Amino acid sequence: MNNLEFVKNVLAEAANYEHACSVLNYDQETICPSAAMEEQGEVMAFLSNQAFKLLKQPEFIEAAEALYKDRQNLDELDRVLAEQLHRTYLETVNITPELDHEFSRIYNKAFVDWTKAKDASDFSMFKDSLEKVLEIEKKKIALRGYDTPEDAAKPVYDQMLDDYEKGITMEDLDRIFGRCRERLVPLLKKIQASPKKIRRDFMSRIVTDEQQRQMAQYLLEVMDYDFTRGAFTTTEHPFTDELGKNDIRVTTHYYEDDFSSSMYSIVHEGGHATFDQLTPESHYDNYIDGGKTMGMHESVSRFYENRIGRSRAFVHLIYPKTCEIFPQVMHDVSEEELYEALNVVEPSLIRTQADEFTYVFHIMIRYEIEKALMDGSLEIKDVPQVWNSKYQEYLGITPPDDKSGVLQDVHWTFGFGYFPTYAIGNFYNSMYYKELEKAMDVDATVAAGDFKKLNGWMKEHVFARADLVEPKQWIREITGRDLTPDDFLDYLEEKYSKIYGL
Amino acid sequence: MNNLEFVKNVLAEAANYEHACSVLNYDQETICPSAAMEEQGEVMAFLSNQAFKLLKQPEFIEAAEALYKDRQNLDELDRVLAEQLHRTYLETVNITPELDHEFSRIYNKAFVDWTKAKDASDFSMFKDSLEKVLEIEKKKIALRGYDTPEDAAKPVYDQMLDDYEKGITMEDLDRIFGRCRERLVPLLKKIQASPKKIRRDFMSRIVTDEQQRQMAQYLLEVMDYDFTRGAFTTTEHPFTDELGKNDIRVTTHYYEDDFSSSMYSIVHEGGHATFDQLTPESHYDNYIDGGKTMGMHESVSRFYENRIGRSRAFVHLIYPKTCEIFPQVMHDVSEEELYEALNVVEPSLIRTQADEFTYVFHIMIRYEIEKALMDGSLEIKDVPQVWNSKYQEYLGITPPDDKSGVLQDVHWTFGFGYFPTYAIGNFYNSMYYKELEKAMDVDATVAAGDFKKLNGWMKEHVFARADLVEPKQWIREITGRDLTPDDFLDYLEEKYSKIYGL
Repeated sequence: MNNLEFVKNVLAEAANYEHACSVLNYDQETICPSAAMEEQGEVMAFLSNQAFKLLKQPEFIEAAEALYKDRQNLDELDRVLAEQLHRTYLETVNITPELDHEFSRIYNKAFVDWTKAKDASDFSMFKDSLEKVLEIEKKKIALRGYDTPEDAAKPVYDQMLDDYEKGITMEDLDRIFGRCRERLVPLLKKIQASPKKIRRDFMSRIVTDEQQRQMAQYLLEVMDYDFTRGAFTTTEHPFTDELGKNDIRVTTHYYEDDFSSSMYSIVHEGGHATFDQLTPESHYDNYIDGGKTMGMHESVSRFYENRIGRSRAFVHLIYPKTCEIFPQVMHDVSEEELYEALNVVEPSLIRTQADEFTYVFHIMIRYEIEKALMDGSLEIKDVPQVWNSKYQEYLGITPPDDKSGVLQDVHWTFGFGYFPTYAIGNFYNSMYYKELEKAMDVDATVAAGDFKKLNGWMKEHVFARADLVEPKQWIREITGRDLTPDDFLDYLEEKYSKIYGL
Repeated sequence: MNNLEFVKNVLAEAANYEHACSVLNYDQETICPSAAMEEQGEVMAFLSNQAFKLLKQPEFIEAAEALYKDRQNLDELDRVLAEQLHRTYLETVNITPELDHEFSRIYNKAFVDWTKAKDASDFSMFKDSLEKVLEIEKKKIALRGYDTPEDAAKPVYDQMLDDYEKGITMEDLDRIFGRCRERLVPLLKKIQASPKKIRRDFMSRIVTDEQQRQMAQYLLEVMDYDFTRGAFTTTEHPFTDELGKNDIRVTTHYYEDDFSSSMYSIVHEGGHATFDQLTPESHYDNYIDGGKTMGMHESVSRFYENRIGRSRAFVHLIYPKTCEIFPQVMHDVSEEELYEALNVVEPSLIRTQADEFTYVFHIMIRYEIEKALMDGSLEIKDVPQVWNSKYQEYLGITPPDDKSGVLQDVHWTFGFGYFPTYAIGNFYNSMYYKELEKAMDVDATVAAGDFKKLNGWMKEHVFARADLVEPKQWIREITGRDLTPDDFLDYLEEKYSKIYGL
């Protein structure tokens, strides 16, 4: 058996453990009873440790490293695999199975504690676990291997950012977020000063879970989601889960007095699912489907949620169905009123429910907190206070409690550096939207509900190479340009100037 | 480390795989998308094989067998563990991990094929898998080890029966079912000839899923089900799943024109769950919670479903809530009318929806088919025809299709010998109901909704020793008598004579 076959056999075995962990994680997020969470977490830690041990066998590492050295002679998919394995090798070179098992248990405990703390709206119940996560996240960076002294010298937070969005640095983000601040702060002031009154009374009219379920089902059908290769259900915090190439699940959450929340969370998660469902099967079969970065993924989900989902054309498409499914809401609401209400700009507390305009401020706040935690200028115990004061500074509002403040997101139970990818996604999709416009009349395609055509373009131009290249190269291949926030800022300016009559 | 510690350490490790398999199985039964079923089945086969390998290590077997030889010097719980391990040792002595893996895959494929065949109502899509299951079930018996030549000489089907209900034989069942036939056939004729008209029009009035969900929630609360240590959801075929000592889940199924179906499936599964939730924690911690037989388990679930759930006192208890949750059904229905409608005797096609009177015929049919398959007098290909003709013979009705006939139950995807335990459960619970009556006024307790008291008696007298002793001894310890169907037959005769004015 040659190195390539050997490596793939071991990966196939490890994939069994990883698949099982995915299902157990999904179960924890959806239905696992509270008293059983820790025990199930222990099982997950055990299984992921079994996979870890397989990939730490000296024979496996030798074979994988030999492939990496010889990567120029491999097919493209195998070369990408060799590069991904080398990256993992460096990340885990000093991490023993015992240490890995300890880490898994800490992450899982953090998740359980966060759930309890959020229920109780009490940060102090999560604080110790968060300290532990911060500590092991830093420890993991300290234990890494590096190809060059330059790599080793990178700041800790740059390395964390790189884990979620290869090649992105604090320098990039400081520049990009600076540009956002520069253009969005004055624009937000103008919007807030506008005399335009957008009607919103109907947005909080009561709807049943069953009505919302029907709407979610309809929206997934509109998006051409493949139900034979997925499922949808409800969770506290909506997410998409890729359990296998034929198993891409989405979840949503119903609020009886906020029907649009579930609608747009389902379009967002449906976007993630479209990306995964239309990823070439060969990438799954070659174990490289994890090559796509979080920023790429968020670009796609936010493309469907905002660029498409909150467009005038999409509202035109779905308006008749909203009237049919939510008669008690829509009986006196016009298409234009629905469009405007879905695009109200208003500072708010919960990131996942923020409008697309103020959304980026939520990310900047989290980015600044993480950066300060990493350079040591902020301590965990002070995070809630800093969180609240930054919300006051950027958005002019202060969370009344931890649940709607610092405890709202699950992300810090598993690490730091993820949040910026949400904003970067907006910048990517505004860049490739311009290419899409060259290929078709986007509004006409959306208004006609032709998602096969839209998804087809996305598959060919946006999805096809995402597992294969780093994000900076990926966006350059699609658009011929380097990452910039300007297309996104132009889009916001044009759209909201029109809505608010600026 | 001594033998006992070593054995328990290995069992703890294997329990991780078993726990994961339980969750994956639950996922397959509840939400896993169709296109992903086979892949997930492969993962389950892999994991259960890892557990199997652990328990097949020579060091483990030697230690476990040494414990068994020395069992008279062990504490009771450890002695029971040693006996259970010895039993497993004999069952698997000639089964290699490769063979075990092959078996797991066959069972899983059978489950997937059965699901598809049932959807299509086409037995031919399940036939090949069923042949395979029959073949490996026989093969597994042929590969067993035995303590004595007498054990080895037992008929194949007796050994299968013994797997689900230790000590029960075809001789027992032929005698018991003969007695049932003798007493129930004439009684059924009298009931069918009775002029009594039971009002049933309201039983098929339309209810929503949400109303049924509320009712299921209420019934589980009435039964004192612990929601922090369980969950409930919907599946095609309702079941209870013990995933861990703090994770006992129940499922149900909603039919819009049959509200009582879900109500009584939830009381049935709630009964199973009560048994598992009130099993001593020390049994879980000592890996002997699997000692309770299927017949014991069914005795409890059917005790709650029928003896308690369909009693006049229980209907009195829940009547106000049915009026509140199902106003469109109950607005013109009296308590007495509801009680009678819940106890109509009428031959029907679906076992799980059969009334408690005709239920035993469904079991007799399956028992006779299984027995004939094992002695070679019946071939798989002829099962649907024999099934249909037996339904005609015993119940006077013929299934219109495979879905409501031979494909209705999942059980044959994993083996044979299980069905009789459903009937045996009735015989056990009618026997211990007599003891319960000596301890309390059962009707008054139920009418008052005092399930803490009822469950408390069950815990002390019925549940406590179930993992520790074989069923024939267990029922003798509770009642001082040997297994007999007569208490059950007396109960049926008295109850239905009264309802039908015989």
